[in-house]
Amino acid sequence: MYNQKRMQDYGVKIGELKPGQYNAITDVKGVTVGHVTLSKGDMQTGVTAVLPHQGNIFREKLIASTHVINGFGKTMGSIQMQELGTLETPILLTNTLNVGTASDALIDHILEQNPEIGRTTGTVNPVIGECNDMFLNDIRAKFIRKDHVWEALNNASSEFQEGTVGAGTGMLCYSLKGGIGSASRTMELNHGTYTLGVLALTNFGILRDLRINGNPIGLRLKDALLESGELEDKGSVMMIVATDLPVSERQLNRILKRTVTGLSRTGTIITNGSGEIAIGFSTANRIPHDKPRSCLSIKTIHDEDIDGAFRAVGEATEEAVLNSLITATHVVGRDGNQRPTLKDLIEKFGVVLS
Amino acid sequence: MYNQKRMQDYGVKIGELKPGQYNAITDVKGVTVGHVTLSKGDMQTGVTAVLPHQGNIFREKLIASTHVINGFGKTMGSIQMQELGTLETPILLTNTLNVGTASDALIDHILEQNPEIGRTTGTVNPVIGECNDMFLNDIRAKFIRKDHVWEALNNASSEFQEGTVGAGTGMLCYSLKGGIGSASRTMELNHGTYTLGVLALTNFGILRDLRINGNPIGLRLKDALLESGELEDKGSVMMIVATDLPVSERQLNRILKRTVTGLSRTGTIITNGSGEIAIGFSTANRIPHDKPRSCLSIKTIHDEDIDGAFRAVGEATEEAVLNSLITATHVVGRDGNQRPTLKDLIEKFGVVLS
Amino acid sequence: MYNQKRMQDYGVKIGELKPGQYNAITDVKGVTVGHVTLSKGDMQTGVTAVLPHQGNIFREKLIASTHVINGFGKTMGSIQMQELGTLETPILLTNTLNVGTASDALIDHILEQNPEIGRTTGTVNPVIGECNDMFLNDIRAKFIRKDHVWEALNNASSEFQEGTVGAGTGMLCYSLKGGIGSASRTMELNHGTYTLGVLALTNFGILRDLRINGNPIGLRLKDALLESGELEDKGSVMMIVATDLPVSERQLNRILKRTVTGLSRTGTIITNGSGEIAIGFSTANRIPHDKPRSCLSIKTIHDEDIDGAFRAVGEATEEAVLNSLITATHVVGRDGNQRPTLKDLIEKFGVVLS
Amino acid sequence: MYNQKRMQDYGVKIGELKPGQYNAITDVKGVTVGHVTLSKGDMQTGVTAVLPHQGNIFREKLIASTHVINGFGKTMGSIQMQELGTLETPILLTNTLNVGTASDALIDHILEQNPEIGRTTGTVNPVIGECNDMFLNDIRAKFIRKDHVWEALNNASSEFQEGTVGAGTGMLCYSLKGGIGSASRTMELNHGTYTLGVLALTNFGILRDLRINGNPIGLRLKDALLESGELEDKGSVMMIVATDLPVSERQLNRILKRTVTGLSRTGTIITNGSGEIAIGFSTANRIPHDKPRSCLSIKTIHDEDIDGAFRAVGEATEEAVLNSLITATHVVGRDGNQRPTLKDLIEKFGVVLS
Repeated sequence: MYNQKRMQDYGVKIGELKPGQYNAITDVKGVTVGHVTLSKGDMQTGVTAVLPHQGNIFREKLIASTHVINGFGKTMGSIQMQELGTLETPILLTNTLNVGTASDALIDHILEQNPEIGRTTGTVNPVIGECNDMFLNDIRAKFIRKDHVWEALNNASSEFQEGTVGAGTGMLCYSLKGGIGSASRTMELNHGTYTLGVLALTNFGILRDLRINGNPIGLRLKDALLESGELEDKGSVMMIVATDLPVSERQLNRILKRTVTGLSRTGTIITNGSGEIAIGFSTANRIPHDKPRSCLSIKTIHDEDIDGAFRAVGEATEEAVLNSLITATHVVGRDGNQRPTLKDLIEKFGVVLS
Repeated sequence: MYNQKRMQDYGVKIGELKPGQYNAITDVKGVTVGHVTLSKGDMQTGVTAVLPHQGNIFREKLIASTHVINGFGKTMGSIQMQELGTLETPILLTNTLNVGTASDALIDHILEQNPEIGRTTGTVNPVIGECNDMFLNDIRAKFIRKDHVWEALNNASSEFQEGTVGAGTGMLCYSLKGGIGSASRTMELNHGTYTLGVLALTNFGILRDLRINGNPIGLRLKDALLESGELEDKGSVMMIVATDLPVSERQLNRILKRTVTGLSRTGTIITNGSGEIAIGFSTANRIPHDKPRSCLSIKTIHDEDIDGAFRAVGEATEEAVLNSLITATHVVGRDGNQRPTLKDLIEKFGVVLS
Repeated sequence: MYNQKRMQDYGVKIGELKPGQYNAITDVKGVTVGHVTLSKGDMQTGVTAVLPHQGNIFREKLIASTHVINGFGKTMGSIQMQELGTLETPILLTNTLNVGTASDALIDHILEQNPEIGRTTGTVNPVIGECNDMFLNDIRAKFIRKDHVWEALNNASSEFQEGTVGAGTGMLCYSLKGGIGSASRTMELNHGTYTLGVLALTNFGILRDLRINGNPIGLRLKDALLESGELEDKGSVMMIVATDLPVSERQLNRILKRTVTGLSRTGTIITNGSGEIAIGFSTANRIPHDKPRSCLSIKTIHDEDIDGAFRAVGEATEEAVLNSLITATHVVGRDGNQRPTLKDLIEKFGVVLS
Repeated sequence: MYNQKRMQDYGVKIGELKPGQYNAITDVKGVTVGHVTLSKGDMQTGVTAVLPHQGNIFREKLIASTHVINGFGKTMGSIQMQELGTLETPILLTNTLNVGTASDALIDHILEQNPEIGRTTGTVNPVIGECNDMFLNDIRAKFIRKDHVWEALNNASSEFQEGTVGAGTGMLCYSLKGGIGSASRTMELNHGTYTLGVLALTNFGILRDLRINGNPIGLRLKDALLESGELEDKGSVMMIVATDLPVSERQLNRILKRTVTGLSRTGTIITNGSGEIAIGFSTANRIPHDKPRSCLSIKTIHDEDIDGAFRAVGEATEEAVLNSLITATHVVGRDGNQRPTLKDLIEKFGVVLS
C-alpha cells in the first residue's frame, strides 16, 4: 500500500491462498487502521489504532477472542474479552510503558461517544496491546499523550502505511528494524468467499533465526554482517486478526491459536521475554449492547469448514511479519542506537529473497 | 421420585426459583437417566448413564462444556468437549478404576449405532466421570463389566432413583453415605420459560463442614455422634448440568462455573484429593455431525439474560447434593466398612432440617 | 483495627481456624496496606495499595498467581503474572475508569526506584484491580490523579481502616454500602505455623441473597426495609490473598480458586456483570530479578499439606467480605445517591447477627 | 538407532543445538521406550510406552505438564497432571479406540506394583495419548489387548525403533506413511549441561504442506506423484517431551508450548480434526507420593535461563517428526489401503533432502 514495496513485490509468495485487494487487514470490510508516528531523536514511538467497524462499536459489539502464546507484557482487556466473547472498543497498539495513557485516552473516546456509560449502563473495556521499543525509544519518557491516541483513532482509513510507523516506529524484529506489517487471505467455502486479515506489530526474534518462505536468510545475513552483533531477543509481537467469516468466539480462538504456525515459519523460537499475543474479531455478527426481548441468532460455520481459516491465518501472519521487515525504514534513535533494515541489507549483500 | 423422601419433603427449601415437575435433571425434555447397581459384600459400585437426548447423539450433537473446579481424577472426554464445544455421547459415571471399561463399552455402544465410524468418518469422544468409592467398594477388583454399562444405557428413563444407586452405590459424602442426587429449577425470561437440572454424584466433604440451607447441621451431628470419627476427605463430586436454555458453549461454561456456589453452600472447602468437575450441555441447538452446505444459525441468549441460569445452577447443585445425602440408604461394604446415613442420624438425634 | 467494630465483635465466628493478630491481610509479615480516600459530593472514590513486602519488589519478586471467577472488568497485569508466576509491583485497587491513571502512576513509582528499567533491563508489569463505583461516584470525572496513587503507596502500614475507605469509598455490596474488608487465618502444619490473609474490595451482590454465617440476614432485612428497593447487581469483588506458606504458583492458584467457597457462603450467585478476581502472592520465596549463576531452590509444601490453606482462604474471604459490610459508613454520593449500611440496618431493625 | 537411516544421515541438519548420544528421547537419563507392533492385514496398530524413570513412578512422581495445541481426541490423564503438576505412571500411546483398554491395562500394571492403592492410598492417574490409524488399521476391531500393553511396558529400553512400529504402525503423516520419530538436543547453561528429548507419534498433515528444513519437499513430491491423491488431513500428533532440566510445572508448560514451533516448521496448518497434544516431564526433581514432615525443596532454573529449552524443544520436535517420516516402512493395511513412504518417494524421484 502507499507504494511501499512489499514481500510479494520481491517475488516472495507465502502459501497458496489468494490475498485480498490490499493484502492487508483492511480487506475485511469495515476495518480501518490509523497511525500516529513520533520520530525525533530519543523519541521513536507511536500509536496504531485498529477500528473493527465504522459504527458505534460499544453499542454494536463484535465476537472476539484473544490467545496468549507467551504472556509477557501488559496487554489490557483480554480478561473481559474471554469472559464475554466480545470486543467493544477499537484496538490500540503502543509502547509498553504507555498502556496506561492509551487506555485512559481510549476510555475518554468511548465515553464521549456514549454518554450513558457510568450513568445508565456500566463501564467499557478498552483493548490495548504493546511491545517494548526501549532500544530505539526512551520509554521512560512516556512520550505518548492522549491526543496522540485520539489522532490515531481519527485518521484511520482502509489504506495505511507499514514498517517504521505508528506503534511500530521504534520496534525491532529479528535484530533488524521491525514495525507494522499486514497481509490478508481469502477463503472459498460452499456458502461464500470470506476474507481474513492480520496486522502485526513486530518486535521479536534474533537475526540468525530469520526464515523467509523457508529460506534461512537470517543465517546468511548474519554471516555477511559480521560487524553488527545480534541483539538478545527481548521483544514481542502483537497480532490483530480480523475476518468476516461467521465464527463463534470458540472458533475464533481456534483460528487465533494458528497465528503461531505462520509466526514459527519466520523462524522464531518464541523467547522468554517476548509477549506474543493474538487478538481477533469477526465482523459477521453484531452483538447489541442492550439485551433484546428475544434470543440472538448467531451465524457460524460448522467446525468442519474451519481449515481454510487455519491456513489463511498462518499464511497472513507469516507474510504480515515479513512485510513489517521489508517495509521498515532506517531510524537513529535513543543514544544513537540503530539497527539495519532488511531492505538495506539485501541490497548491500545482493541477497535474493524469492 | 420413586417415593423417595427428599429435601423438600423435609421442608428444606433451597433458594427462590421453582423446581420442575420431577425436581430432577430429567425435567429438561429429552434427558433420561439409567443406573446399574452392584451391591453385595465387597462389591459396592455401579454405573449411572445420562442420555442428553433420545436421538442419535453422535449425529446430532449438543453444545456442551466442562469446568474443572479441582482436577483430581480421570474424567475422560473433556479435551475434545472444550475444543469443539459439543457432546456426542451419553455421559457415564462410575468408579475411578473402571473408567477404562466404561469408555470401552460406551465406544462399542456408539460404534454399533454408527457403522460409519472408523470407515467414512473418524472417531467418537466418550465422556466419563468418576469418583473413588474405595471405602465401601473393592476398587482393585474393578467389578464393572461392559454389559453393566450397556444395561445402564438401556434402562435410562425420566424417573430414576437417587441415593445408594448406580455410580453412587459406594460413595460417601460429608463422612456419611452419599451417592446420586438431583434437582432442577425453572427460569422465566422474556422469551420463554426454561429449565436447568443437575445430577450430582457425591463423594466429598467431612461431617463437621456440612451445612443444610445455611444451618451447621454437620457440626451438631458430629458432636452428637462422638463415637464415629470423621473420615479424611479424599473424595470427589461430579455434577452433570442439563438445560434447554439456548446458550453458546462459552455461556454454558459460565453457568457450569457457578455450580461451585451451590456446592460451597453445602459447606465443603474443596480439598486437595477431591475431583470436582462439572459437565454440561444445552438441548436448545443440535449440531449436525456432517457439515451442511450453509452456515449454522445458533440460537443463544444475550449475556444480560444469564443471571437466572447462574441462580438456577447454584440452587439446583446445592439441592442435588443434599438430595444425595437424604436419600442414601445404609450399606455394609468392603471389610465391613460402613458409614451412617443422614436420614438415620437426624432420626436418631431428633435433628430438624428445615 | 483502628477501633472499628468488626464481625467478630458482633459475635460472628466464621469457621474454625484462628485469625492472626490483626485478623487482617497484614498478619502476613511484611505486608502493608495504604488508602487514599476521596469523599466529597459526586466524588466518592479512592485508591488502596497492598505492598507485598517492604523491600524492592521489582528486584525481589514473589511467587504469585491470579484466578478469574468472573472476568468482567479491566484488571491489569494478570497475563504476565500467570506466565512468569511472579509479582513485581505493589497491587493497586481503584475505580474502573481510573485503571489507566493508576497503572501509569505505579509505573512511575517503580521507574523511580529502578533506574535500570528501559535501559539495561526491560519493563515492569503493574498489577491493578478495579470495581465500578458509579452509583455513588461520578466515574466519568475520573477523579484519581497520580499523586493520589503515590500517596496510597507511601502511607501503607500494618494497621489500616476498613469499610468506606480507599478504593472502597464508593462501593456497594449486597445493595448496602460496601468497601474494604479484611481477615486472616493461621494454619498449623508439621513444619510450622503459617498465616493467610485476605483483603477484599466488595462491590457485588443483592440484598436478599446476603447470608451471615449461613443465616439469611439479607432476606430478613429486605422484608424489613420495604421502602428501599434492591439494586440490580452489576458489581465486582477483588480479593487479594497473601500468605507466608511456601507454595508454588500452581499451589497458590489452587488456593486462590477456593476464595469462591467463602464468597459463595456470603450468598452471592456471581452475576454476569460482576468481575470476581483473586490475586495472590506468597512471601516464602523471593525470586531475584537477575538470573543467578546457579539454579533456584524453591521451598514448597507437599500438596497433601494444602487443605489447611484451602480452609483458611475460604474462611478469611467470607469474613473479609462481611467485615467490609459491617465497617462501612454512610455516604451521600453522586446525584444524592445513597445506600443503607449494614450497621444502621441491624440497629434499626434489632437484627442479631450471631 | 538400530541402524535405521535418519534425517541426519541424509545430511538434514535441523537447527543449531547438538543432539545427545542417541538423538532420541532416551538421551534423558532413565527414560526408556517400548513398542508392541501388530501388523497383519487389517490389523496395523500397536502400543508405545514411555517410561519416565526406572523406579516406582507412582511413589516417586515427576514434575509434569501437558499442552493442548488442538484438542481433538481422547488423551487421558491431563486434568490431574495439570492440577497436581505431576506424572505418576508411564505414558502410553496407542490407537484412538483402544484408549480404554490401554488405561485399564496400565492401571493393572500400577496396581500390581502398588498394593496400597485402593486400600491405604487413593487411586492412580494413567496417562494415555492416541491417534487415529483408521486408514490402515481396522479400528473398529480394537485389536489391542491388555497383554500387548504390558509387553510394551516390559520391553522398554534406551534404544528403540522408529517409523512403522508400536503405536505408529498404522499412522500416516503428510499423506505418507508416518509413525514414531524421536530426536534430542543438549543445552549448555552456567550450571550444567542438560538434555531434552522428544518422541512424536505422527499422524497429521497433507503432502503439499511438507517442509524439510524449510524446503517445500511436499510440493515437489506432490507434483511428481500425480497419480496418488492427497488424503484429507484428519490426523493427530502426540509429542512426548522429556528433560533433565530442573523446571517447575509452569516452566515445563512453557517449554511444551514451543513444540508448536518445530511442528509448524514441518509445514502443517494444524487442522480441525487433528489432536495435537504435548505431554512432558522433568527428571530433575522427584516428588514423593507420601507427604514428608518437612517442606519440599524444588530445584528450578530461573526463567531467564529457559530460552535454550525453547530452542531445544522446537528443534527436537521438528526433527522427531521428520525422523518418523524417513524411517517409516511400507505397509498394506485395511482393505488394501497403503500410502507411499518418504524414503521410497525421494529415491524414486531423486529428490535430495538436504
